[in-house]
Amino acid sequence: MINVVKIGGNVIDDAVALERFLEKFAAMEGPKMLIHGGGKLATRLSAQLGIETQMIDGRRVTDRDTLDVVTMVYAGLVNKQIVARLGALGTKAIGLSGADANVIPAVRRAPKPIDYGYVGDIVPERMNIGFLRSLVEQGIVPVFCAITHDEQGSLLNSNADSVASAVAVGASQIEPTNLIFCLEKNGVLTDVDDDRSVIPSINRDSFAALRADGTINKGMIPKIEGAFRAIDGGVACVVIKHADNLDNDLETRIVEC
Amino acid sequence: MINVVKIGGNVIDDAVALERFLEKFAAMEGPKMLIHGGGKLATRLSAQLGIETQMIDGRRVTDRDTLDVVTMVYAGLVNKQIVARLGALGTKAIGLSGADANVIPAVRRAPKPIDYGYVGDIVPERMNIGFLRSLVEQGIVPVFCAITHDEQGSLLNSNADSVASAVAVGASQIEPTNLIFCLEKNGVLTDVDDDRSVIPSINRDSFAALRADGTINKGMIPKIEGAFRAIDGGVACVVIKHADNLDNDLETRIVEC
Repeated sequence: MINVVKIGGNVIDDAVALERFLEKFAAMEGPKMLIHGGGKLATRLSAQLGIETQMIDGRRVTDRDTLDVVTMVYAGLVNKQIVARLGALGTKAIGLSGADANVIPAVRRAPKPIDYGYVGDIVPERMNIGFLRSLVEQGIVPVFCAITHDEQGSLLNSNADSVASAVAVGASQIEPTNLIFCLEKNGVLTDVDDDRSVIPSINRDSFAALRADGTINKGMIPKIEGAFRAIDGGVACVVIKHADNLDNDLETRIVEC
Repeated sequence: MINVVKIGGNVIDDAVALERFLEKFAAMEGPKMLIHGGGKLATRLSAQLGIETQMIDGRRVTDRDTLDVVTMVYAGLVNKQIVARLGALGTKAIGLSGADANVIPAVRRAPKPIDYGYVGDIVPERMNIGFLRSLVEQGIVPVFCAITHDEQGSLLNSNADSVASAVAVGASQIEPTNLIFCLEKNGVLTDVDDDRSVIPSINRDSFAALRADGTINKGMIPKIEGAFRAIDGGVACVVIKHADNLDNDLETRIVEC
């Protein structure tokens, strides 16, 4: 069983939380992969360099200068610091962008209706799964940032959740794979104000019911829809949990049935 | 035969020269590896961020902030742009720091007599040659920046020539290996003002003679001494040439005898 774990910018931005997470991640048994988001460092660096950050619907508009910044921060600083720290914790890790070994090719998103600039949508059928297999066989843990490329020389900025899903679907061709999203919540909650109200398991039927009665709403709906797409793609189980709970069972498991 | 090619900052800083070089590098037959220096971008970014750049004897003093800058620029922007461009040229490349797969461990240099900060000297006997072998077997071309790590969680800034030599010595355990240093000259010259006065071949005896009569002097002496150390380490031949001549024989070959 391969565990593909995604952490968001909130963990990246908090050195103590990141260290706590990496210790738990390093201690996980078996093959594993990590995908990290960006955090606020790119926005801060852009500001220092006088590059305006433009967000549309929570997504970063990536002009040429911004692409350079996110490549420096995500593929450079954040990625290599995580790899070095995992090495110190006894986990032999390798930092990857999608350009490396052509592991995650993408296409630049069409500029209509909204021009997001150098933003890439992953082309799953062109991913280099053979290379991921060789890393698993060598006991090397890939650590992905969300920078991809278009196979024509340009790097692209991709969505880290989408990278995580694509990696997990690809890893499913190697071994049965779980996809674990670490959020700032303990899982999918019945009561958004009660962190203990975690729904242990959701399948398609219960999702339909929870959505119909309004228990699951807003931003959680596309996340769970994405989880079912990953399951359709071959992922065994999608888990939503807090990064602090990586070493325990407090979580929501999204399963086929 | 594996060709390990090192390009300096002068090529990195010149987009046209870099593209010309990458086209020739991509066209080289057989297994190959690339090591790139940094160029002026790190100094420029440091200046923009208000970080003072301090050089001692041509070496960058790497404090904590400068380490972050060189990690962003070398391991992030420059490395991934080269990898993406090589991908477009049909060469499946992978960008590596020394932390990745623990391929090049280093130790932080002692702070006496000069404290260079987070500067690392390579520990060749701990390099991960097995991983390099797996890349060669998969036809994947490693592209190294000169960022290494101490295996205790800290990244380190290393000398790119030293990285190139260590990689070539390591690659010699896989297959016979040539180490090619691309400089701004056509090779070792008998007349420093005449770019056509290239010495085609230098062995230990001719080096002693050329050094005794002053033909080879100054900065070229440590370079050639380093070349003989690489040959002692198992490298078949060390070549000094201009990046523009990667596809022809205008060069100085440094050989055992």
